[in-house]
Order: sequence, then C-alpha cells, then structure tokens
Amino acid sequence: MMLAQALFAPQSVALIGASGDVAKNTARPQRFLRKHGYTGRIVPINPTRDEILGERAYPTLAAACDALGTPVEHAFVMAPGDAVERAVADCGACGVPLVSVFSDGFAETGAAGMARQRALVETARAAGVRLLGPNSMGVIDVPGGVAITVNAVLEGETPPSGSTSVVSQSGTMLGTLISRGAARGLGFAKLVSVGNEADLGVGELVDLLVDDADTRVIALFLETLRDAPRLAAAARRAHAAGKPVVAFKLGRSALGEAMARSHTGAMAGTDAAIDAFFRAHGIARVEMLETLIEIAPLLDGRTPVALRHAPRVAVVTTTGGGAASVVDRLGVQGLTAMTPSPALKETLAAHGVRVADAPIVDLTMASTGPRYRAVLEALLASADCDAVLAVVGSSAQFHPDFAVAPIVESPRAVKPLAVFLTPQADLSLKRLAERGIAAFRTPEACADALSTFFRWHAPATTAQATAPAGLPRLPAQPDEKDALAVFAALGVPTVASTLARAPDYAHDLAYPVAAKVSSQAIAHKTEAGGVALNIADRAEFEARIATLLAAVRQARPQAPIDGVLVQRMERGLAEAIVGYRDDPLVGPLVLLGVGGTLAELYHDTALRLCPIDEAEAHAMIDAVKGLAVIRGYRNLPRGDVAALARTIVAVARLAALPGRPVAEAEINPLIIKDEGVVAVDALIVMKESLP
Amino acid sequence: MMLAQALFAPQSVALIGASGDVAKNTARPQRFLRKHGYTGRIVPINPTRDEILGERAYPTLAAACDALGTPVEHAFVMAPGDAVERAVADCGACGVPLVSVFSDGFAETGAAGMARQRALVETARAAGVRLLGPNSMGVIDVPGGVAITVNAVLEGETPPSGSTSVVSQSGTMLGTLISRGAARGLGFAKLVSVGNEADLGVGELVDLLVDDADTRVIALFLETLRDAPRLAAAARRAHAAGKPVVAFKLGRSALGEAMARSHTGAMAGTDAAIDAFFRAHGIARVEMLETLIEIAPLLDGRTPVALRHAPRVAVVTTTGGGAASVVDRLGVQGLTAMTPSPALKETLAAHGVRVADAPIVDLTMASTGPRYRAVLEALLASADCDAVLAVVGSSAQFHPDFAVAPIVESPRAVKPLAVFLTPQADLSLKRLAERGIAAFRTPEACADALSTFFRWHAPATTAQATAPAGLPRLPAQPDEKDALAVFAALGVPTVASTLARAPDYAHDLAYPVAAKVSSQAIAHKTEAGGVALNIADRAEFEARIATLLAAVRQARPQAPIDGVLVQRMERGLAEAIVGYRDDPLVGPLVLLGVGGTLAELYHDTALRLCPIDEAEAHAMIDAVKGLAVIRGYRNLPRGDVAALARTIVAVARLAALPGRPVAEAEINPLIIKDEGVVAVDALIVMKESLP
Repeated sequence: MMLAQALFAPQSVALIGASGDVAKNTARPQRFLRKHGYTGRIVPINPTRDEILGERAYPTLAAACDALGTPVEHAFVMAPGDAVERAVADCGACGVPLVSVFSDGFAETGAAGMARQRALVETARAAGVRLLGPNSMGVIDVPGGVAITVNAVLEGETPPSGSTSVVSQSGTMLGTLISRGAARGLGFAKLVSVGNEADLGVGELVDLLVDDADTRVIALFLETLRDAPRLAAAARRAHAAGKPVVAFKLGRSALGEAMARSHTGAMAGTDAAIDAFFRAHGIARVEMLETLIEIAPLLDGRTPVALRHAPRVAVVTTTGGGAASVVDRLGVQGLTAMTPSPALKETLAAHGVRVADAPIVDLTMASTGPRYRAVLEALLASADCDAVLAVVGSSAQFHPDFAVAPIVESPRAVKPLAVFLTPQADLSLKRLAERGIAAFRTPEACADALSTFFRWHAPATTAQATAPAGLPRLPAQPDEKDALAVFAALGVPTVASTLARAPDYAHDLAYPVAAKVSSQAIAHKTEAGGVALNIADRAEFEARIATLLAAVRQARPQAPIDGVLVQRMERGLAEAIVGYRDDPLVGPLVLLGVGGTLAELYHDTALRLCPIDEAEAHAMIDAVKGLAVIRGYRNLPRGDVAALARTIVAVARLAALPGRPVAEAEINPLIIKDEGVVAVDALIVMKESLP
Repeated sequence: MMLAQALFAPQSVALIGASGDVAKNTARPQRFLRKHGYTGRIVPINPTRDEILGERAYPTLAAACDALGTPVEHAFVMAPGDAVERAVADCGACGVPLVSVFSDGFAETGAAGMARQRALVETARAAGVRLLGPNSMGVIDVPGGVAITVNAVLEGETPPSGSTSVVSQSGTMLGTLISRGAARGLGFAKLVSVGNEADLGVGELVDLLVDDADTRVIALFLETLRDAPRLAAAARRAHAAGKPVVAFKLGRSALGEAMARSHTGAMAGTDAAIDAFFRAHGIARVEMLETLIEIAPLLDGRTPVALRHAPRVAVVTTTGGGAASVVDRLGVQGLTAMTPSPALKETLAAHGVRVADAPIVDLTMASTGPRYRAVLEALLASADCDAVLAVVGSSAQFHPDFAVAPIVESPRAVKPLAVFLTPQADLSLKRLAERGIAAFRTPEACADALSTFFRWHAPATTAQATAPAGLPRLPAQPDEKDALAVFAALGVPTVASTLARAPDYAHDLAYPVAAKVSSQAIAHKTEAGGVALNIADRAEFEARIATLLAAVRQARPQAPIDGVLVQRMERGLAEAIVGYRDDPLVGPLVLLGVGGTLAELYHDTALRLCPIDEAEAHAMIDAVKGLAVIRGYRNLPRGDVAALARTIVAVARLAALPGRPVAEAEINPLIIKDEGVVAVDALIVMKESLP
C-alpha cells in the first residue's frame, strides 16, 4: 500500500498504549479521531482493558489483527520507552506498513537514547515498517478528517481546511499554526510532526506532499536539517510542480559558532549554510513565525521572480500612519517604493487620483469602492511596480465586507498583492483569506512576507563542474605552496612565488617581495612571526628573513622548516577572501567576503552552495557590502569584478574533485586589481587530516 | 481653568460643524460621546439645524454661549478649512480655552497650507485659545468616558480602561492600538491625536500626562519630533515621577539621507539622531508596532537598569519549539541565556527540576501548578538572571486559568517577567493583562520588549560643559589648520604640523611627514590630488609637493592656495572618526565610528546627544563593532581607549561654545595608538557659512 495513504488516510488506526482516562494525553488520539470525523476503524491496544472510550480494545496488536481479519494501516505508539521497540516489531509481524511513535526518550536525550533509537530503526527496517518519530506528535489531515495526534489544538473546533500543508520539527508548533490560522480564517491540509526523524524525514514528507492533491503550498518549521539531499530533491520537485516551499527556521543567533580553523568556517556558520541551501533549492525563508502561515496565499500559484532592480512596491492606503508602518520596514529590507510613469499617472488621474512620485496612493474612506478597485487594478496591471500593498484602516474592523470588498473583487494577478489591516479585524482577515488574498495582522509580518517573496529564488540549475584535469596530488596536510598550486590548476591567478632554501635562500624573483616561512606544521604564519612584507632588495631580504626565522624558531621550536616562500609583492584596489567548506549538513559551500579584520567583525559575507555559475558569483559580489569599494562606490576606481567572479566559480570547483577530499579551503587574501586578481595566500585542509 | 481638564474632562463640549447624518464622520463625536457615557453637556453647532441627534443645536458658538449661560470648555472643530480660523476666533470670543481641530488642509498639504496654519495659530494666540491639531482626530479619556474624536474604533464597545496613555502623531493609530489592546485585555487611560502640533505638541501633552493620576505608562507613536526640548523636559519629569515613556517611531529606513558635506552628517541621519535623543532623555524605543502596547506592563513600575554585562534571561517553558522561537530572537539582539549558579541549581533541584547550564527550564504540562510557581519564584528571586521569560504552549488556549495560574500568582518582582503564549490564546492573554503581567502574542514582539527593556536608559545627567577658555577665534570658513587648533584647545592631541609656503616650502618637522594642500576653498583634498603621505626625506618632499601642487592646480584652477600643510606622519593601531553635528531637531550630537570607507559602508557608528561624560564615551566605544580591533579582539594589541573616550568628550564640548556657532565638525582620522591618540585631519563647518 502507498506510504501516503498509510500516513494520512489509513482505513484503520491502532492506538498502542491507548488510555480510557480522558484526562490523559494517551486518550487524546482516540477522542480526536472520533471528534473530528474519522470514519475508519479505531483499534485501541491496551493489555488490561477490553473496551476503551466505547471502542473494543485488544491486549495486543496481534490479537486485534486476528480478531479483525483486516490489516491495520497505521499504528500510533504511546507506550513507554522500553515497550516501543517491541510494539514496532509487533506491527511488522502484523503487516502494519507505518508506525508513528509519540513515545520519547530517544536521540533527543543523549547517547543512550541515541543507541535506543538506532535499535528501534533497525527493528523497523527488519520488520518492513516505516517509522514517523519517535518523539512525534503525529499527523493531521484536515480535509480528510484524520487526526492521529496528541496535539491539544484538537480539543477545539475542527480547524478550517486549507491548501497549505505543514511539516514541523516541533510538535507543539502544529497547534500554534492551526490555532493562529483558524483565528484569521487560514486553514491547512496536512500537518506532520516529524519528531526525531529516525526514518521518515522532512525531505521524504515534502516529497509525499508534492504528490498530494490537497496541498498547494508546503510550509516547514525547522530547527535543523537532518536529510538535506532528500529535502533538496523534494523542494526541486515541488518547484517543478508549482508548489512553493516556505520555511521558518530557528538558529539565526547560533551563527558562526562551532566551526573554526579556517576563517571560512568561523564566518559561515550553520545557519548561513542552511540559508544558502534554501536559496539553492528554491525554498523561501521567512523571518517571523506568523509570516509562515500568512505568506501562503502570497506564494500560492506564484513562482520566484528574478529582478535586476530593487523590488518596487506600490501602496494604496486609507491611513498614512498604517501604510508608513509597513513601508518603513520594507525600506530597511531593501525594497523601494514605486515611481509611477507618466502613463500610470494618467491612468490613475482618469480615476480621479493624483499621485506624485510618492510611494503611497492615499485614498480616503470616501473613495473606497469602485475607485479603490480601479486604482488597485491599474497598479496590479502596471509595469511600474513589482508588488502591490493595500493598507486598510479602521473600516476593516466594523465594516469588513465594505472595507475589503474592492480588494476581494480585484482580479488575481501574477504580481503579489499583500494586505495589512491596521485594527484588530478578524472578520476582514477571514474575508481575504477565503478569497486566497494574503492578509497580515502586523506591519512587520507584512513587510517580512513581501521581502521574503523577493528573496525567493528558483532552484539553481548550474551543472556540476567536471573535475579539473592536471590537478597536483594533494598531501594529507597541504602547505601554502601546495594550496596555491591547486588553485592555480583550478584557474585562479596566483602570485609568482618560489621556495628559497637554506643555506643561502637564493631566489630569482624581482623585488619588492614578501617572504613567509614554509612549514606544513605552521598554519598561522603571521601569529608565529613568520611573515615579512614589502622587502625592497636583497640586503633587506637577508636581514628580514634572519629575523623571521629566529622568531619562528622561538615560537615553534619543534616545527620542521622547509625554507622561505618568496612571493612577488602584489598591490591592488581591495582584498577579498574566497573560501570553500564541505558542510556536514548541506555539502560544499563557497564563501566570499572582504579581506581583513573588519569584514570578519561585520559578518559581511555571501555564501552559496556549489556549484555556481558566473551569474551567481556576480550576485555574491553584489551581496557583499564591503565590496562596494570595487563596484564604483564614491567614484573609487573599479576592480576587476569579472575576474573575481571567475575566481569564485573556480574555487567552487573543489566540490568536483573525485571523492570530495577537501574539508575547507580559502584564498586570503585575493588581491583585486583594476585588471585581474591574484591569490597571494591560500590554505587547504583535507578531510583525512581532520581529527 | 486647567488645560488638562479642558482637554480630557471638559464639562461641556461644542461640536463645530456637527452633522445630523449618522453616516458622516462629522456626526461621530456626538454619537461617540453619548454612546460611551459622557455626562457633560454636548453643544452641536450647525448654521442650518436647531436639533441634531436629539440635542439642541445652535447656529453659532456665540448663540450657544448666550443661550447656555455657562462657558464651553472644549470645542471640536470639523468645519471645512476656510471656516476653521473663524471658528477659533469665535471660541476665543466666547472664552473657550481649548479647541481641537479635526479639519485638515494645513501644514500637511504644503506651502499654502503652512501659511494657513500660521494664520490659524496667530488667531488662536490672539484669542487666548490653545489648539490641538489641526488635522487631529481628537482626544479620548477611557476611564473618564470622554470621547471627543472621529476615530471609528468607538463604533465598537467601550474599550477597556487601563493605565497606559497614548500620544500619537497618527490619528488612525489610536484605533489600531485600542482595538488590538482590547482583543487581549489591555486597556488605555487617555489617548490624544496631536495632528500637526501647531500649538499643543507631543512634549506638552506628555507633560500633562505626567500629572495625570490615571496614567502610569506613556506610549508615543511618532513619525518625527517637532518640539524636542519640550519632550525632553517632559520625559525627564516622567522618569522622576516613575512613569516610563516608550515610543514607536517610524523612519528607520530614511537613515542617513538628507545631510551631507561632512561624513558625520551622511552617517548620522535623522533617525539615529532621534534614537540618541530617546536614550539621553530616558525614552524606551520599541521596534515593532504591537510591542508598543504589549510592553506597558513590563515597564510599569520599573526603572531602567544599568547592566555591566549582556542581559541574562531565564526561560521556563512547556514547549521547546515555542521557547526557542523567542530565545533565537533574543540572541540576535545580544541578550544571553542565564547560566545557573550551583546555589540556584540546588534550589531548583529541591523542586524536582534539574537544569544543565542550559538557557531553558523545560517543565512538561504535568509539572505546571505548584512546581511551576516555585520555579518561577526561584528565578525571579535569583541573582543569576536579569529577566524571566515564561513560555506557555497549547494549554493556554483551552485551559487559560489552569495554564497561566502559576504565572498570575507569582509575586510582582523588580525583575521583568515576560510571557509568550504559543497558540492563539486570547483568554490567557486577558488573564495576564488583568494582573499587570506582560504577555505577548508573537515571539518577535516578546523578544523586542525584553530587548527594549535592557536598551532603556535613565535620563543622562551630565552637566553641560563650560565653554573652553582660550579658544581661537573661528573664521567663517575654517580650514584644516583652524580646525586642528580648535580641537587642540578643546584638549584633543593633534598632529605636529606647520604651514610650508612658497617659494621654498621650508619647514622644521622631522621626516617622515605628510603634505596636504592648504586652501580654504578645497574641502576634499584627497579627491583634488592634494595629499601626499609617507614622505621620507627632503628630496622626496620637494618632488612630491611639486606633483601635488600641479595636480591641485589642474583640478581646481581657481582655488587660492596658502601653501602646504606639513604634518608628522603618524601611525597607530586603528583609525576612528569623531564627529559633531548640531542637529536641527534634537540639537548637538557627537558621533564615533571607525575610520575608512568600510566603516561608512557598514553604518557602524555610535551617536549621543551632547554633553556626554567619559562613562558614556566608553559606552559609545563599546557600541562600535569595528573598534573591537582596539578592545583586545583576537589578541590584537589594545588601543588607548581612555584617551579615545577623553577625545569624544572634548569634541562634544563644541556644544558649549557661546551661541553654538558650529554646524558640523569632525576629526577624521583620529589615530589610536597603544598610548594616546592624535588627530591628523579635522574639519569644522560654521552655521553662518551654510547656504
């Protein structure tokens, strides 16, 4: 039988560990199933009762299956920790294809729980059973009337049906989203609490929802990623099927913590990596919790747009202060106001509305109705703006039908339309929700949604690069010279350099030069006193490498020294860092930042999943504020942005090496000149050398 | 009679331009006054009716006053634009002390309207009448049952009474705040829509509210500042009276636009200036609209705390995902989680609760009740944390009394307690509001409120510095040498420098030196090719100033050149910019930023109102991210932070010059060394020289 049917639409559900005490959580699934209209068979399993809440109960699943003669399609396990594995084995023996495990005490509790979870998964695999959870709150199919869950939200009225489905790593959040949605007329289709994702993960569930006829938008509540490749593939299928995927993810403030060694790791951080993952695979990301539900109608039926300018929003409002409270936030997020063309001005004037080059079309209450609708239609049809924001004042509270009528009657457009209601106006929110129009309770969520829409990208389509030919073999611990050679082979211009050896340290480079100690044992040469810059001639060279070598020998007496790496002294307009990291969650990433300490302090970096193409590399360059200095800021001389873009693409090709042996790498600094770029220092860390 | 009584509690209200057509806005005040229990006399004025909505109406105010024999205390003018001035004059003639003008068409419409507004104010002054508005939606006193307003929110039920009063520059926002507050049990005392503030402004109204017995917290909705000195004084009185003042202000994204010339202007911007104003005068500022109402119980009865560490928040929750959604935002805003001491761990263990060094005390539903309350009390009493956050899951929706009982019963503490409810849980919000406990609808507003609380400062108490003695007289257009002399007189160490003149450009400074063209006509010397750095000896000096002078003569052929300013070449650990600006809205400001182009790109500056003391200067240094490089970041050598602080205080003394002649000034760069600082370039722009 199909997994989706067992999960969302089983003909029969066994409740293992069901209780007859209505005050207990373990009585909830049975109560909820009946209360919300489940028409299939409910099979309570309890060793000591033969009847529970009016249903025939069985001591074991086997007994139930024997008695019933028909298979159970979904088992919900609420038994205590130790009994879970046995229950899953029983399910396998009885041919139950899917088990949802509410019981906790597994991976979320530490090492012992992790071991229990592994054993549970092995048992399930051996028994041919798919697992949701453990530590899952279960599954709800609102249109289907199936509520296999302990979530207390179902104590209330049956929630409204909708076309947004939810996959959540927090079980409580299902209730949060349902109750908040219901209060404003926003319903859901299917909702799944994934728990620990021991077997069924977010990715596979999204994949199921892509094929679900009731689902038009897929919303994710995430705390981490456990199955990135699967989610990536599912998100791409969703995009192809015209089903937007949107995520709220916790962990913004855990930025740049765990990882270290190279600056790339320190600057990238897990949250930024997941952000890059979302972007690469077409997942929109909201910043605020309620936006996750409110944005659905804005995304539904729309696809990401690729603008070459800051998104321009046209605003129609009956209240200046209310509109400003959204527009101010839009501005902070880089969106701009529409500048109307003469043609649009004329169209609006024909409806008796005069606009300046101002962002806001202010219509007093009196002019709502036909005129309001005409203005809205003109803006939705106009090429002067990329989105329309309608703000409604107090009339939304007491005259919902009147206040939102012209908005409700507006034609559905490709261009997004967002509505913010300034008062508490639940009925108006419902009217808009019924018509699939995105309406927002707060100015901040409204701005968040519009900003999210324009940050949303179609899945990246760059083909994986082929492994570069003629790449030098990398030792377990590459030194700077090895690293520069690899980058040169990848196509990055690298500094002219040569290894000068004892006793005379001869070299054939023209002055001025830089000198750096060469030792596989010393990763941070500057800290060890092993770098001398701007050496003007041979005499200075001899004096300064003597000082340098003495300093290094004092700082790192045990480190074997190969010699001194002599490099041509390079100058340019700016310095950048180009990094690479094979992230344990999302895979290979390429990073761009400004060189130097300040850039690190400001976390001013752009991060993308590999591979990337030059267009995306240019987008990265545009995303790094500090690189404004080479983009023509304040008439500063322009740097060779094209060469920088080629370099980023080249560094990302590290992901194409057979076996992906590189853990981290960086060019720091890459000198950007008015013509060309040159890598003057580089670092590569191999996976096999990591502890 | 007292202004406050006339405004909020008049015995009689004249409605000038009242309509008998209930569908019209101009009928609203009369309907609202009656509907919401006004017990005084209502006097509709309408030239063509002798009865309106059941009240005796009069053709003119004079006729009404003659007939009534008692004075009208408050007139609300809804007459069209041209009739307003006459109505105000009539009010004066009849002894009405206060007129609220709803009519629009004044300063908000441009130059002609501005002139009309000036005329209106003159008429009012001459007539001895105080004005609220024009373009004001009026006044509401909820506990007093007085609603002299057209705001549609009063079509609904009488809103709940509370102890928060509101002064708003947006009339619609009164309805927004009232309706949203009512939905969660938060009431208001007095609410005023100030309109154009032609006479009565935000400052004077706050001042009235300080003396209002019903008001405990004063909330401001602002779009600009029109009477900064008055608001400053009122906010300080409010602080002294123990009444917190909190503002939501639009205009974040208008940052750094209008002002130019010196970089200070470009970097500071109006919104940042108003932020500095709020800080200096003890006004808390929220970032999100709903926080403005939800934060009131958090501020009520509390005063700003001055922490020497990042604020530590303890979290008690029944849902991990819900708590994380707040904590994640707190982390982004620089708040940290509590690390419990052994003593606190022991106290909690005595209640059966084990905590790790983790931020979150996770109590399942089962443990709510007495244990929950005990944990809450222990945290509120503990020195390990500065605030407590309680997060309640789905039980808040269906069992409000049970779910929030332990929170409602917790003792009121000096330490702030914030509550976030994950589901839609209006009844729980009401229960908490009734007990004066701060409860939040969204995780973002909850984090915003806690963050706002810890950003809130007591009014600065630095005495105005005295004018420095022996200050050189400043010409109308000071050049670099003049500016450096002024800063030296203020106590800032400045670079050794001398003016070298044609024909031989002799000077007595030791090499290496820098050379800069000296010309009052050239503000941006670098752009004109007029700067040469790192000159090693006399030969190089002669060669390079020849090049320099040729470049300047080509770039600026008309500029008179005094000679070449020769300065000792200074090196340090970092460069800063210290700026000064006499802001038209808030007065003299001092700015600190990192020197160089990057700092400008990142808007990484700290801004304070003058005067400041060294403690506040140190706070500024800590607030500039880029200055981490002199604060010991990554073991970099520490800069002389104390000397930098003294310099900031010295620059702020420009505000003490008699007549405040300086419009803008900056030291850029100020070189920060391991010992001492030195100003190597400076600029002063006098007000009289501005166009």
